[in-house]
Amino acid sequence: MVNVLDALTESVKAGQVVTADAYLHRYAVDQAPVTDFQLPLAVVFPESVTDVQSVIGACAAAGITVVPRGAGTGVSGGAHATRNCVILSLERMNRILSINPDDETATVEPGVVNADLNDAVAPHGLMYAPDPASFRSSTIGGNVATNAGGLRCAKYGVTRDSVLALDVVLADGSLIHTGHQTFKGVAGYDLTGLFVGSEGTLGIVVGITVRLKYLPRDVHTIAAFYPGFRAAAAGVLAVGRARVQPAIMELLDGGTLAQLDELHGSDLTARGRALLLVQTDGFGAAAEAEVVRGVLRAGGATVTTEASAEAERLVELRRHSRGAEVDDEYRVGEDVAVPRSRLVDYVAALESMAAEHQVKLKVVAHAGDGNLHPTFWIDRQGTGVDPVAMERLQRALDDSITAALSMGGTITGEHGVGQYKLRWLGQEQPEPVREIQRRIKDLFDPAGILNPGKAI
Amino acid sequence: MVNVLDALTESVKAGQVVTADAYLHRYAVDQAPVTDFQLPLAVVFPESVTDVQSVIGACAAAGITVVPRGAGTGVSGGAHATRNCVILSLERMNRILSINPDDETATVEPGVVNADLNDAVAPHGLMYAPDPASFRSSTIGGNVATNAGGLRCAKYGVTRDSVLALDVVLADGSLIHTGHQTFKGVAGYDLTGLFVGSEGTLGIVVGITVRLKYLPRDVHTIAAFYPGFRAAAAGVLAVGRARVQPAIMELLDGGTLAQLDELHGSDLTARGRALLLVQTDGFGAAAEAEVVRGVLRAGGATVTTEASAEAERLVELRRHSRGAEVDDEYRVGEDVAVPRSRLVDYVAALESMAAEHQVKLKVVAHAGDGNLHPTFWIDRQGTGVDPVAMERLQRALDDSITAALSMGGTITGEHGVGQYKLRWLGQEQPEPVREIQRRIKDLFDPAGILNPGKAI
Repeated sequence: MVNVLDALTESVKAGQVVTADAYLHRYAVDQAPVTDFQLPLAVVFPESVTDVQSVIGACAAAGITVVPRGAGTGVSGGAHATRNCVILSLERMNRILSINPDDETATVEPGVVNADLNDAVAPHGLMYAPDPASFRSSTIGGNVATNAGGLRCAKYGVTRDSVLALDVVLADGSLIHTGHQTFKGVAGYDLTGLFVGSEGTLGIVVGITVRLKYLPRDVHTIAAFYPGFRAAAAGVLAVGRARVQPAIMELLDGGTLAQLDELHGSDLTARGRALLLVQTDGFGAAAEAEVVRGVLRAGGATVTTEASAEAERLVELRRHSRGAEVDDEYRVGEDVAVPRSRLVDYVAALESMAAEHQVKLKVVAHAGDGNLHPTFWIDRQGTGVDPVAMERLQRALDDSITAALSMGGTITGEHGVGQYKLRWLGQEQPEPVREIQRRIKDLFDPAGILNPGKAI
Repeated sequence: MVNVLDALTESVKAGQVVTADAYLHRYAVDQAPVTDFQLPLAVVFPESVTDVQSVIGACAAAGITVVPRGAGTGVSGGAHATRNCVILSLERMNRILSINPDDETATVEPGVVNADLNDAVAPHGLMYAPDPASFRSSTIGGNVATNAGGLRCAKYGVTRDSVLALDVVLADGSLIHTGHQTFKGVAGYDLTGLFVGSEGTLGIVVGITVRLKYLPRDVHTIAAFYPGFRAAAAGVLAVGRARVQPAIMELLDGGTLAQLDELHGSDLTARGRALLLVQTDGFGAAAEAEVVRGVLRAGGATVTTEASAEAERLVELRRHSRGAEVDDEYRVGEDVAVPRSRLVDYVAALESMAAEHQVKLKVVAHAGDGNLHPTFWIDRQGTGVDPVAMERLQRALDDSITAALSMGGTITGEHGVGQYKLRWLGQEQPEPVREIQRRIKDLFDPAGILNPGKAI
C-alpha cells in the first residue's frame, strides 16, 4: 500500500494524489446503490496522457487496481471503489483539443463535460448529440465508458454512434489509437466499439474524437396529456406508425407527474394521468409536429397547440425529473429496454408488480427507443431498515428484469451493467457469451487491475 | 482432402456440396483484383444454421479452412478462395425470418439480398438504410461482413448502425447470439460490433436482426454541374456549412461523366466537367433542397430546378456507375476516406498523381462522408502485360493511399481490407494495434480456419 502511494506521488505532481479522508469518501461511490462500500487508497487526478500512463504503470507494478471515474454521475456503480483500489479521476483532463467545423468533428479529453462541448460547438451550428439526463455534469469520457444514451437517441443514436476514434491507455501503460477521423472507416476490427461501453475494464480512454451533428434551427414541442399510462404508451406506437421520427419522445407516468408538481408547483396531475412529450426538429419539424398532433389526438390525448412555451418547459422539467434524488437501497431506478411493440404490455406488467409487492412505482421512458426507467421504492422507516419491505423491493426489481427479458428486452438500455446490475447479467447472456467477454478482458488486462468486478 | 469432402457430404444433403470445376472457378473469387488465385476444394451451400455448424465442425476436424461468401460482390477479395479451402456460400440461407413493423426491426438469414429486404419492408413504410452500389445483388450477410456503406450513409449510417443482433457460428461449431432486439442495449462488451466488418474471420454470421428506418415520403434531387472537379468538391463543404444533411451527396468527375455518356448516350460531359448530385429526403426535403440549390448556385454551379426527373435519373445512373466493369490488374478502384475538409486537397492530389504516373483516373465519391472511389487504370496492351505500365499503376495506387493517410484519412471507408488492401493496412495501423487484432482473432479462431489472410 505504502509502496503504491510513494510510486504515485513520484509519478505525478504534488496535488494530484489525494488521500484526505473527505476526498476518499466523496470519490468512493457514484450515484448507484452501494452494496459493498469500499474506501479507495487514494484519488489520483491525472492532467495529461503521460500522467495516466505513469499512474497505470505504478499501479500495475504494485498490483493495485484502478477504478476510472468521470464526474461520478453513473447510476450502475461502474465507478464504485473496489477493495484496495486507486480512483483515477479524469476530471482535470477537460480540454477540448480541437473543433473542426468543416469536418464536423471534435477531439476532446475525457473529462470534458458533455454540455461544455455542446456550448463550444453550438456557434458553429453543430451539436454533440448524445444527451444523457446528466449532460450538464457528466463527462464525455464517462459517457463513452457507459455508451450513454439520452433523450435524443432514437433519432440521433447513442454515444457509440458519435464516437469515431479513441486514444486508450492499456493495462500495461502503453497508448494506442483506434478508429478513424473520417465518418466511415472499416480497416480492421472495430476496437473503438469494443472500448465504448466497456466501463474502463479494457483500458483508460484518454482522448475521444466525436462526430458532430447539425444543430436543428427549428424545433417543435408537443405535450400530450392522457387519462392513463397505457393510452400514452399506445401513442408512442401511433407516432411510429405515422413514420415520423421525433428527436425526443418521452413518456411520464402519474407518479412522475405528481413528483414534478411537488417539486415545481405545476398542475400536471390535474391535467392527466400520463404525459407524452414529443419534440420534432430540423427543416421538417413543423410538418412532423402537425402529423404527430393529429395521431395523438386521435388516440385520445389532449394536445398542446403550436409553439407551446409550456411544452418546452415540460421537456426541461423532464430532463431533470430525477431531481436531486439519488438511488439508494430504498429507491432503485431501472434501465430496461423492450421492443417498442411491447411498451404497453411492459407498463401493464410493471403496474401489476408494484401492486403485488406493495412497492411504490414511477416510470419515465425514452419511449422512442423502448428504454424505460421505472423507479421502485419503499418508504424509509426512521433510521432502521425494514427487512420485509426490502425483500419486497428486491422481488419487484427482479420481476421487472425478468419481465423485460421475457419480452425480448435487455437489462440495461443505456446505464451500463456497472456493479449493481451484474446480478441480472446472467439472465440476459448465457455462459458461453459471458466467457467470450471474460477472455477479451483477460486479453486486454491479464492481471485484472482495470475496474475489476464491473461490466461483464 | 478426401476426408473432408466425405465428412461434408455426410453432414449435409445431396446437392449442397459441389465440386464441379465450373463451380469451383466461379466461386474462387469475388470482384476484387486477384493476386493469388486458388481453387477451392469444394463449394458448400448450407440451408440452415445446423448445416453451417456441421460444415464448420467437419472443416475444423479436418483442419480445412473455410471462406464464407454472400453474393461475391465484394471488391477487396474478402471472399477470394485461399489455399485448400472450402467456400461456404450462404446464398441459400435467404429467408426473411420476421418483419416487425411496430418494433421497426427485421430478422433475416445472411443470404437475403439487400434489395429484397427493402422490397419486403417498403409496404410498411420502412427501409433498410445501408445501400451499397451492389444492393440489387449483395447479401445482408456480406454487407455485415464488410460493414458496407453506400450512398445514404452520411445521413443514415453504415451497416453497423443498423445491426442490432447477430447469430454467429464460432470456429468450434457452437452458436452464440449477440446484441439485443431493442434499439438500445449496453449489457456487456459490444460483440455485435466486433463481428460486423470482421469479414468472416471471427465467426460465421447466420442470423441478423436489423433496425429499419422510415421510408421517406418526400425526396428532392438536385443535379449541379460545375466547370471543374475542385469547385464541385467545394460545393460539398458549402452544403455542410449550410448545416443541411442530405440523404445522398455524390460527386462525379469528368472521367466518370464521359463513361456514363458512352454507356448511356447522355450528354453530361457537354454540360460540365464535374457533377454533384444531392438528394434530400423526409418532411423537410423541399426546404432543404431550396437551401442546397442556393449554396450550390452561389458556388458557381448550374443547378437543376425543382422536381427534376433528369436529376433522379442521374442518381440511378450513379448507382450503376461501376457499370459492368470489374476491377482487375489493369483497373483498380480505391475506397479511401478523408476528413471532409480535405476533399478538395485530396482530389487535387489525385489529379497530380494520375498525371505524374501517366495513368487514367476517374473519381466518384460519397462526398457527404468524405469517402472517395478513385479508379486508376492503364490500357491493356493486347494480351500481354506491360510491366512498366503496371508498375506506374501500382505507384499511383500506393501514392493515393499515402496521400489519404497523410490527410488524416483511412485506406478503406466501406469496402473492407479483404485480401487486396492488406498491403496498406500497416501504414494505417501500427503494430501494437494490429497485434491486438491478431490476438482477438486467436481468441475466436485458435486454429485459424476462418477466412485466413483477410481483414487484419
